[in-house]
Amino acid sequence: MTLPRPDLLVEAPYAPNPRRVRIFMAEKGIDLPREQVDIMAGEQFLAHAERVGTFHVPALHLDDGSWLTETVAICRYLEALHPEPNLMGRDAREAAEIEMWSRRMEFQLFYPVAQVLRHGNPKMAVMEDQVPQWAEANRTRVQSGLELLEHALSRDGYVAAGRYTIADITAFVAVEFMRTIRQELPEAHDATHVWRGLIRARPSSVP
Amino acid sequence: MTLPRPDLLVEAPYAPNPRRVRIFMAEKGIDLPREQVDIMAGEQFLAHAERVGTFHVPALHLDDGSWLTETVAICRYLEALHPEPNLMGRDAREAAEIEMWSRRMEFQLFYPVAQVLRHGNPKMAVMEDQVPQWAEANRTRVQSGLELLEHALSRDGYVAAGRYTIADITAFVAVEFMRTIRQELPEAHDATHVWRGLIRARPSSVP
Repeated sequence: MTLPRPDLLVEAPYAPNPRRVRIFMAEKGIDLPREQVDIMAGEQFLAHAERVGTFHVPALHLDDGSWLTETVAICRYLEALHPEPNLMGRDAREAAEIEMWSRRMEFQLFYPVAQVLRHGNPKMAVMEDQVPQWAEANRTRVQSGLELLEHALSRDGYVAAGRYTIADITAFVAVEFMRTIRQELPEAHDATHVWRGLIRARPSSVP
Repeated sequence: MTLPRPDLLVEAPYAPNPRRVRIFMAEKGIDLPREQVDIMAGEQFLAHAERVGTFHVPALHLDDGSWLTETVAICRYLEALHPEPNLMGRDAREAAEIEMWSRRMEFQLFYPVAQVLRHGNPKMAVMEDQVPQWAEANRTRVQSGLELLEHALSRDGYVAAGRYTIADITAFVAVEFMRTIRQELPEAHDATHVWRGLIRARPSSVP
C-alpha cells in the first residue's frame, strides 16, 4: 500500500504545538517545505482556515491533496513513514506506556501552561475570550504537573520507556514554554534539571 | 512477542471516560473483571491512587502487575490485542484521520462538556477548585464543538473514515454526557440526530 507523502508543513513561530512537530521531524531527519502562519495577527482564521478547514496549526499537507492536523496524529503518521529512530513505541506494550505518559504530560503540564498564558496575558486576548481566574487556577496545575514530571524522571531519566520518546518532546516543549508565563522549574527538581540540560543539548531542540 | 494480558478494569459509574472504554470493549466483545471506584465519594484519591499511582479512572491492570491509564492509551492497547472489529484505523492514513477527529472531538466537545459540569455544578466541588466563569465560557465551546460534529457527520454519516470508529465513541459519549449539563442537541443538526439514533441502537451503547 502506498501512503500519501507529506509535502508541506504549516506552522507558527513560538507556538508550542508546531514546535513539538519540528522536534519530532528533526529527530527523524525529516525535511519538508514549511510555511508560517502569524497567529498573533490572526492569520489562522483567514486563508489558513479557508484551505485547511480548521484554524489549528500545525497542519501537514499530503500529496493526495488532504490536510492532517492535530500534533499527535501528525507525529504518528510521520512515525509510520519514517519508523527510525522510534519515538512512539516498538511494540504495543511500549506504545501504551509512551502514549499514557505523553497524554499525562499534555493534560497535566502542557495544557495548564498554555491556559495560564492564553487566559492571563493581555496580548493573548486576540485569540481567546479570557477568563483570568482560569489562568490563576492553572498556575497550581502547572506545579502539580511539574511534580509528576520530576517523579517520572526520577525513575530512569526519561518520561517513559527508559528512553527518549514523544513523551519527552511533549514535556520538554511544555517546560520550555513556561518562559512565557515566567514560571521557573523548582530548584529541588534535580531529575528535571538534568533531563532539561540533556534534551536542550540535542540538535533537535533548537527553537 | 507475548504481550501482558489485561485482567481487571477499574472504572467509575456515570463518568464519561470509563464509558468510552466500556463501549470500546463491548464493540470488540472483550469481557474483563471490573471494579468500581466511587469518585463522588473521593475513593480515587485513596486506595485507588495508592495502588495505581494516579487518581485517574479508568485504569487497566495487566497480568505483569502493571497499570495502564489514559483512556486512549488503554483503547489502543486493547486494539492491538483484539484487532477486530477495527476501531482505530486499518493503515497509517486511516489511523491518522481517525486520531485527528477523535482528538478534535476530545478537545472541542468532550472536554468542554466536562468543564461545564466540573466547574458549574456545586456537587462537583468535591473534585475541583471551581471557576464558575470557566464553566460559562465552555458553554460556548460546546456549541462550537457541536457545529463541528454536525459538519463532520454531514459528509458521510460518521465522524471519521466513513465508518464507526473510536472517533464516534468519543463524540457519542460527549453528546450523551451533555445530559449532566442540561444541554440539548440543536434541532437543526439533522445529521447528528440521525447518527445519535444509530449509535444509541448499538448494543455497546447501554450505559
